[in-house]
Amino acid sequence: MAEITSYPHRVEPQEVDFTLRASVASIINYMLNVAGTDAHNKGFGVDVLQGQSFTWVLSRLAVEIKSQPCQYDDIVVDTWVNEFNRLSSTRNFRVRRGDEVMAEGVSQWCMINMETRQAVDMSTLKDVYERAMVAEPSPIAVPARLRAIEPTTSTSRPVVYSDIDFNRHVNTLRYIDLVFDALPIELIENNHGMRIDLNFIAEARYGETLTIGGINDGNVWQFEISSDSDKTLCRAKISF
Amino acid sequence: MAEITSYPHRVEPQEVDFTLRASVASIINYMLNVAGTDAHNKGFGVDVLQGQSFTWVLSRLAVEIKSQPCQYDDIVVDTWVNEFNRLSSTRNFRVRRGDEVMAEGVSQWCMINMETRQAVDMSTLKDVYERAMVAEPSPIAVPARLRAIEPTTSTSRPVVYSDIDFNRHVNTLRYIDLVFDALPIELIENNHGMRIDLNFIAEARYGETLTIGGINDGNVWQFEISSDSDKTLCRAKISF
Repeated sequence: MAEITSYPHRVEPQEVDFTLRASVASIINYMLNVAGTDAHNKGFGVDVLQGQSFTWVLSRLAVEIKSQPCQYDDIVVDTWVNEFNRLSSTRNFRVRRGDEVMAEGVSQWCMINMETRQAVDMSTLKDVYERAMVAEPSPIAVPARLRAIEPTTSTSRPVVYSDIDFNRHVNTLRYIDLVFDALPIELIENNHGMRIDLNFIAEARYGETLTIGGINDGNVWQFEISSDSDKTLCRAKISF
Repeated sequence: MAEITSYPHRVEPQEVDFTLRASVASIINYMLNVAGTDAHNKGFGVDVLQGQSFTWVLSRLAVEIKSQPCQYDDIVVDTWVNEFNRLSSTRNFRVRRGDEVMAEGVSQWCMINMETRQAVDMSTLKDVYERAMVAEPSPIAVPARLRAIEPTTSTSRPVVYSDIDFNRHVNTLRYIDLVFDALPIELIENNHGMRIDLNFIAEARYGETLTIGGINDGNVWQFEISSDSDKTLCRAKISF
C-alpha cells in the first residue's frame, strides 16, 4: 500500500478566465497532468505502456468544484489510485490551497492497444499497480453513466490545428472548453459550486466537424458532442 | 543600466501541439508571461499602473522561430527593455534550451488609461524605466507595420467564454490560435523556421463575431482579423 502523493502548482495567467480564477478546463488539466506524472513516477506511465503499443484512455471523469483558485495562487494537487480491475482503474484528485479543499475529482481509465484501439486486459500491470494502491476512498461519487439527450440547441465547427493532440485527436480539454463556451456566461461568473460528469466515448480527428448539442432543466445542463456521421464523442452533465 | 534577466520554464503537456513541440502560441505566451513578470519585478507592472487606472497594451510583436522546444524541455526566456520614449517601449526576448537559441522576439508596448482607452504619456515612468534599460540591441528586426489586405479566404465565429481575458476582451493568444488554425497544417508540421509580424489594432468583446480573412503568396501568409461592423482587430504576416 502506498500514500497519497501531492504535486505543487502555481496558477499561471494563461490558466485563468475573465474572473481571474482558474477555469474549469484548467482545474481539470491540473488533474490530468498529475495523473500522467504520477503514473510515470509509479512505473505505469504512457512511456512504459508505449513499449507494448498500449496507452491510457480516460473513459469517465467527475469533478466537484467548491471554489476556483486565483491567478498566481500556489496550490497542491493530491492524487491516489484506489481501485483497479482487468478493465478499469480509478484515480482520485483533490485540489487544495493550503488546507482549503477547492476541487475534488474521480477518473476512470482503461488501457487500449494503440493499433487496434481495443481495450486491453490490465492484469499484466497487477504487481506494479498493487504497490501503488492507496487505502483511501474516492472523495466524491464516481462519474455517472450519461444517456443520450435530445438537444434543443446546437452549434457546429470544424476540428482545427489547435484542438488536436499527438494522435491528431481532439484534446480532452477542448471538450471542456466547448461545453463551458455553450453555457450562459453568468453561471460561470457567479459559480459558487458545481459538479461535472463527463463520459468520453469516441475520438474526433482533424478534418471532422464537431457538433455540440445542449439541453437545460433548472440548474442542470447536459451536452452531447458529436462529429461527422453522428458519432458521439463526449457527454457532459453540469449541475450548479 | 541593467542586465538581461532570465526566467526558467518547463514545457508542459498542454503547451505542445500534435508534433509534441511547443506551439507558436505557447512560445509567444512564454514571452508575454515573462514581460508581465519582469515589468512587475522592475517596478512598472500592471499592479503599479492600475493604481493610476493605467495599463500596458501590446501594440506590435515580431517573433522569429528557428526550432520549437519539446514537451518537458527545460528552457530559459531572456528578456530586456532597450528603448523607451513617451509613447512606446520596446521589450526583447530570447528563448533558449541551454545555449541553443530557439526563438527571438521584439515587442512594442504603449500605456493606456483604462477608462478613456487613450494612450498615456510614459514620461512619468522615466526614472524607474531608465534603471531597467539594457544596452543590448534587439535580436531581430522590429515588427513591421502591416497594411490592409484583400482576403481570398474567410471564416467567422462568435467570441466565446474561453476567448476572453479579465477585460472581457479577446485574449491576445487567441489571435495567434486563429491565425495558425487557418494555415495548412503541413506548414506547421514541417516548420524549419518562420518569422511572424503582428499588429494589434483594436479589441473584440464577448458577444461580437470574429472574421478571419487570409491571402497567400508563395511562402508568405497574411491574415486580418476583424469583428462586427468591420472593426480591424489584428493583422498578421507569417513568412516560412
